[in-house]
Amino acid sequence: MKDLTIVSMDELKEMKEKLQERYDSFKSQNMKLDMSRGKPGADQLDLSMGLFECVDDKKFRASDGTDCRNYGGLDGLPEMKKIFADILEITPAEVIIGGNASLNLMFDMVSQAMTHGVVGSEIPWSKLPIVKFLCPSPGYDRHFAVCEYFNIEMIVVPMKNDGPDMDLVEKLVAEDEHIKGIWCVPKYSNPDGITYSNDVVKRFANMKTKSKDFRIFWDNAYAIHHLYEQQDKLMNILQACKEAGNPDRVFMFTSTSKITFPGAGISAIGASENNIAQIKKRLTIQTIGPDKLNQLRHVIFLKDMDNIKLHMKKHAKILGPKFDVVLKYLEKELGGKKIANWNKPLGGYFVSLNVLKGCAKKVVAKANEAGVKLTSAGATFPYGKDPDDSNIRIAPSYPPLSELEKAIELLCICIQLVSIEKILEE
Amino acid sequence: MKDLTIVSMDELKEMKEKLQERYDSFKSQNMKLDMSRGKPGADQLDLSMGLFECVDDKKFRASDGTDCRNYGGLDGLPEMKKIFADILEITPAEVIIGGNASLNLMFDMVSQAMTHGVVGSEIPWSKLPIVKFLCPSPGYDRHFAVCEYFNIEMIVVPMKNDGPDMDLVEKLVAEDEHIKGIWCVPKYSNPDGITYSNDVVKRFANMKTKSKDFRIFWDNAYAIHHLYEQQDKLMNILQACKEAGNPDRVFMFTSTSKITFPGAGISAIGASENNIAQIKKRLTIQTIGPDKLNQLRHVIFLKDMDNIKLHMKKHAKILGPKFDVVLKYLEKELGGKKIANWNKPLGGYFVSLNVLKGCAKKVVAKANEAGVKLTSAGATFPYGKDPDDSNIRIAPSYPPLSELEKAIELLCICIQLVSIEKILEE
Repeated sequence: MKDLTIVSMDELKEMKEKLQERYDSFKSQNMKLDMSRGKPGADQLDLSMGLFECVDDKKFRASDGTDCRNYGGLDGLPEMKKIFADILEITPAEVIIGGNASLNLMFDMVSQAMTHGVVGSEIPWSKLPIVKFLCPSPGYDRHFAVCEYFNIEMIVVPMKNDGPDMDLVEKLVAEDEHIKGIWCVPKYSNPDGITYSNDVVKRFANMKTKSKDFRIFWDNAYAIHHLYEQQDKLMNILQACKEAGNPDRVFMFTSTSKITFPGAGISAIGASENNIAQIKKRLTIQTIGPDKLNQLRHVIFLKDMDNIKLHMKKHAKILGPKFDVVLKYLEKELGGKKIANWNKPLGGYFVSLNVLKGCAKKVVAKANEAGVKLTSAGATFPYGKDPDDSNIRIAPSYPPLSELEKAIELLCICIQLVSIEKILEE
Repeated sequence: MKDLTIVSMDELKEMKEKLQERYDSFKSQNMKLDMSRGKPGADQLDLSMGLFECVDDKKFRASDGTDCRNYGGLDGLPEMKKIFADILEITPAEVIIGGNASLNLMFDMVSQAMTHGVVGSEIPWSKLPIVKFLCPSPGYDRHFAVCEYFNIEMIVVPMKNDGPDMDLVEKLVAEDEHIKGIWCVPKYSNPDGITYSNDVVKRFANMKTKSKDFRIFWDNAYAIHHLYEQQDKLMNILQACKEAGNPDRVFMFTSTSKITFPGAGISAIGASENNIAQIKKRLTIQTIGPDKLNQLRHVIFLKDMDNIKLHMKKHAKILGPKFDVVLKYLEKELGGKKIANWNKPLGGYFVSLNVLKGCAKKVVAKANEAGVKLTSAGATFPYGKDPDDSNIRIAPSYPPLSELEKAIELLCICIQLVSIEKILEE
């Protein structure tokens, strides 16, 4: 492949014409394809149809005899806690079960910190003149939206190959007492697909924070969401925090959203028993407890970690080929042209793509014009502002393979067109 | 029956001895009965077993084709909104669907008001020097707990036969700009079983409030929960508020908790479209949306209002006789003795009983000692403090009839014992 940044103007113009023809041909097909969100495809949902048979008019009791139809059970069925404890590699006493959305648990946790503080807070965060969060970026737009909603100032921290830039993280939290938290997707990160190294996890657990009630919001959404046989391994941060003498520093979140049904799964929070006790106090006021029948369904369907691992392999069998197609086209269309670079994740739901500075928005708009919806450019940064306007998040899970191929080919055409225009302008 | 307040001391002592014998005999049976919460009995839950058959591997799509297994659908399925709109007598556009607990919707609404305000707020309520709520009492302990959690000062408003003391309500809200809300259970109220009169509803809608962002938290938990053919009718407050030019004044809440499964039902909020728009803005940040499969289950099972009314008659057939037993024993054991008075509700889940001043706590403790658990005395008042120590909430729904008979007989014995002791002391 030719490095586009050094080919002749004439050659570029010629390439552009050919690309424009391909683009116009795509556009005339009036496609409607969506690669904007990490939404599982219908074939993945079909893997969990067994859930529908797990509870019925004979099976509605938990193992301790609890009638799951009635009130009661604030923090979850013991057997549901056991499953999430295994996923998060903690103990059931360190788990609280939530509703169908872990985002809700995160939002409520920040909300509680604002109105009441967390364990160790001297005053509620909202009574401080300012609250700041570190936001490793690119990251998850919904995390940033929670900060924006609560008027929490977001500080961008660059992502490196093994996690956030820890030199910068350590420096900032040591200096500024108003930095109260950090958002992390530590395994198969959204969107980079990076898993934090042991060194990064240990530095998180051990770092000195000027704020006494600093919290790591550890969104382990893709804890067991491997794509291939080769798998990343994430160090247990709660254990590391305990060993470092900072057991209350971390809130872990996860869910079955991408294990069973995204819209009707089970979420969980994991934390030190001190933290759990404080959260339970709020829950006694906030709710009568989450849906126990849906927990029972999941307990019966998922069984245990061995069975869950088998189940996740079925997801991988569907998802892996989709990632392969994306990577194949990226390499075929863009490889060696020096107009884009991307990651090759071993798990998760995204491929993160960086195009030439100032081109991401134009690429996304151009793809959209031809019927391919992508995550808004900038969405992976706080306030929706990518300083370089270069990051594009590709979510290959939802479209069927045949459609995905078209979508990614079109995206590659758009990237080349916009890049050539930029080079020609310069 | 003899008026115990005027019989001779000797006679009282004799009665006391006989009652003590009956009490001891009950105690020796080592019963464990629970009349503490408005929890449906197992036979009521059996009425909704059909829910288990409503969705399966063929039926998981809403009427508009939405795959209810996947992400999406922030504010509820259109057909679910329609059902709650019918229950609340409003339009689907005025409804948002929640998770399985309407308490959660109320908590979140107060939380939002504290951190962000409501439509018309100049500043978030938490930025005010003080926030106060009116609390018609006796009332629902979980409402009061939400206020206590958010450090909202609670002002007791007495309950009358047709709702809260509106002279007092009007006076207070006209005078004090820090009064931001009031808790109401307007139909078959908890615990009095009273339904607010049309006059009370109109006064709520029309009253002048010094605060510009005053809100009525209208917890219509028992909207269609009749016990008999004779039924109370509640005026539509959202309509009344619109007519009064105060459309944004009310948040309505309801749920299927006591229609289908208490632990696995569907909740809803009803309000003006202005309010709904503001709540949706929060929801886009707070969650990916509630469990649509459970909504679909409910839509298919409940069908429409005609079917729901038939279903509620089945509940009434189970609950009515329980209320009858309670009222029969109260009349038989306490009637004419001038040591207690109680209501005879046409719906809801409670009988509210007032004993002699200073006796409620002792009665509850005495019953508890003999194995009958009642709602804590005082729980029906803000801060758990009944100024007269006289209100006792009876929840007859959970125990089977045979056990309920024993429990209520024992309660009557305890009331007489404690009352006689009080009279003898004076």
